Amino acid sequence: MAQEPSNRPLAYRGEHQMKPLPFDPAKLKGLSEKLITSHHQNNYGGAVKRLNLIEQQLGAMPRDAAPYQQGSLKREELIATNSVLLHEAYFGNLGSAGAPDGDFATLVTASYGAREAWEHDFRLTGMSLAGGSGWVIASYEPHSQALRNWWAFDHTHGLAGGIPILVMDMYEHGYHMDYGANAKGYVDAFFANVNWDEVSRRLEAARQGSLASRDVPG
Amino acid sequence: MAQEPSNRPLAYRGEHQMKPLPFDPAKLKGLSEKLITSHHQNNYGGAVKRLNLIEQQLGAMPRDAAPYQQGSLKREELIATNSVLLHEAYFGNLGSAGAPDGDFATLVTASYGAREAWEHDFRLTGMSLAGGSGWVIASYEPHSQALRNWWAFDHTHGLAGGIPILVMDMYEHGYHMDYGANAKGYVDAFFANVNWDEVSRRLEAARQGSLASRDVPG
Amino acid sequence: MAQEPSNRPLAYRGEHQMKPLPFDPAKLKGLSEKLITSHHQNNYGGAVKRLNLIEQQLGAMPRDAAPYQQGSLKREELIATNSVLLHEAYFGNLGSAGAPDGDFATLVTASYGAREAWEHDFRLTGMSLAGGSGWVIASYEPHSQALRNWWAFDHTHGLAGGIPILVMDMYEHGYHMDYGANAKGYVDAFFANVNWDEVSRRLEAARQGSLASRDVPG
Amino acid sequence: MAQEPSNRPLAYRGEHQMKPLPFDPAKLKGLSEKLITSHHQNNYGGAVKRLNLIEQQLGAMPRDAAPYQQGSLKREELIATNSVLLHEAYFGNLGSAGAPDGDFATLVTASYGAREAWEHDFRLTGMSLAGGSGWVIASYEPHSQALRNWWAFDHTHGLAGGIPILVMDMYEHGYHMDYGANAKGYVDAFFANVNWDEVSRRLEAARQGSLASRDVPG
Repeated sequence: MAQEPSNRPLAYRGEHQMKPLPFDPAKLKGLSEKLITSHHQNNYGGAVKRLNLIEQQLGAMPRDAAPYQQGSLKREELIATNSVLLHEAYFGNLGSAGAPDGDFATLVTASYGAREAWEHDFRLTGMSLAGGSGWVIASYEPHSQALRNWWAFDHTHGLAGGIPILVMDMYEHGYHMDYGANAKGYVDAFFANVNWDEVSRRLEAARQGSLASRDVPG
Repeated sequence: MAQEPSNRPLAYRGEHQMKPLPFDPAKLKGLSEKLITSHHQNNYGGAVKRLNLIEQQLGAMPRDAAPYQQGSLKREELIATNSVLLHEAYFGNLGSAGAPDGDFATLVTASYGAREAWEHDFRLTGMSLAGGSGWVIASYEPHSQALRNWWAFDHTHGLAGGIPILVMDMYEHGYHMDYGANAKGYVDAFFANVNWDEVSRRLEAARQGSLASRDVPG
Repeated sequence: MAQEPSNRPLAYRGEHQMKPLPFDPAKLKGLSEKLITSHHQNNYGGAVKRLNLIEQQLGAMPRDAAPYQQGSLKREELIATNSVLLHEAYFGNLGSAGAPDGDFATLVTASYGAREAWEHDFRLTGMSLAGGSGWVIASYEPHSQALRNWWAFDHTHGLAGGIPILVMDMYEHGYHMDYGANAKGYVDAFFANVNWDEVSRRLEAARQGSLASRDVPG
Repeated sequence: MAQEPSNRPLAYRGEHQMKPLPFDPAKLKGLSEKLITSHHQNNYGGAVKRLNLIEQQLGAMPRDAAPYQQGSLKREELIATNSVLLHEAYFGNLGSAGAPDGDFATLVTASYGAREAWEHDFRLTGMSLAGGSGWVIASYEPHSQALRNWWAFDHTHGLAGGIPILVMDMYEHGYHMDYGANAKGYVDAFFANVNWDEVSRRLEAARQGSLASRDVPG
């Protein structure tokens, strides 16, 4: 008889639940309810379901499995886990509130010389992913207390030890329904909808850690 | 005239310095001084030098650069930055001290059912990378307060928002001089040299943060 | 003064031209003219333009360039070149004509046991790419005279020495405008539009070594 | 009872055999017998064994498998197949014979302006892969009748429709035993050992469409 889910170890539990959208999908600027709802339900929701299957399949891996079997599933686990986490961070930083000021403005100015230069770097990195997949992730680095923009070609990429603060989805499912190949139009819409209060909250949470040390992660 | 380095914004500064080995390379068990010294000097040191060039090249990117130019350099920045950070974490968790107990043992048991099951998962993931490149990274997840093992096929991969706690280099430059294609022999040697005190210290630092929230990163 | 284009060596020439659609984009079944035209003009056309820039930038690489500069551009060259070639192969095998019979049917039956089993494998590989990027490529292998389906996660992947015979684009720009997240609907539409006469022609050319044409695969 | 191997369809047969080294491994210049024998036996041989397991596992995939299960195995199939084919092409173009002249010299001069410029591009692409994984592949393009160098970051990459003519392995298992981190020393040794007669033979076969042999590329 199958083991009761609640008895499985955490890594193999496969009981992740979707988080609802933290805003009214009918009220974003320039991003349609149909697009946002499909993105949330199908792409994020699909990743949650897939992750649950993958974790349970990993838990059923025979003790003497060939290493490639482990590697191929661990890759799928990374893809699905990051897809879940980054989609949650993405929807979480939409909804239009506040302004890119305070500590966030201070950190990006320190890193890029000016807030406008930071935004140019973020947008241009996004445009380099147009027509394909990926994310642009502004991450706080506990080890240096800085914030920088990172290129991610797919769900698997990210700064080692970095805490995502502002996240933009560049997968085509994030904009094609509304913008087709006009990725620039989507990037404009993204910036018009950022919830800067949430961005500030994340940054504050990340900075309050004891992680601000040169020793962790490296 | 070239701008003085100290005036460049942080993201384009390109002044990273190597960190010395935190142990005597002649005293590891089953990993030769020649191997460790070459790994540290050539692979880690090479990444530091390359990262400095990449950051400065990014800072000199023309305002009207084609997006692919930005994307290709941002990819190189991610590769070199993670190579630097992960190598520092790797050397930092070698040197043989303490034992895999305390909070670490509690967390991996929660995730994998038993410490031995965690180690089997970690080792098998490592073996899946034998003959190629990559890392195995046991990361603390601030959003769930759990610790799991992650597959990384090259320097670019990692858990979004995860804090590397125990890191094993599976690039062939990490073992071929001593073990040739015998990756299993290397993985055994890695475990014989882990500095568990450092592992515990990292975990403690990661857990003391205010990051232990479902809201960051996602 | 800039060198005249026609004097540049072939590898650095950067004078690729778009090929027109080989069918009337208003007449496909279940794939709209708007989708096909955008796909051809923006995604394929964008790759042609980008490839031309990349080749010329490679030709201007300083003799003493850092290796990472070469590597990052060579990666972009591979992405853009394969995007051009695979898009040409994709549009080239649409337009609805003939049937999957003759040598093609013989080869896929030899490889998969039955033509239906081949199609199941091809479709399921396509579905594994839903929500992201990639291609499914049925390639002829000159060294074994067989034909098999290959997974490609992005433009860079492919069988060493394989000749693309039937190519399905799984980038979301290939279907999101018409099908949203319903990748299965798109795969059905793809199969309803295959130009099997062209597939047979390619296979014949591959087997006779008469591929020296601008038409196969690009 | 298990199906007899000889009854399985080709794609799921899993009966690939190793090819022996086409030269005496004790007689290469600057590449030790120990290195070459380990490379052939462990890395190439390991890929052959793994490929056989993967093909049989693909053949046992349930009809209703989740798409990610298909995708992850198809990725492993691509990695293992290309590792087999490229290793066969690599060992096949070592053994030191002939000179880079004739049609080969004509084609690379057409592409790069001069044979020396071709070799510089090939070597620099190789150096961009130092410290990690990958291949440099000079491929003949049937569609344009040209020959160019391609960057491959791992076993999965390659020119769509390209026929490998000269192949250099840049995985660290190809040189670390003899050269450590001195990748340049290895690249010099590679060029000292090229079997140009085989390179010419492959190019001739590619141009005549007579590749239907177990020898090219694998």
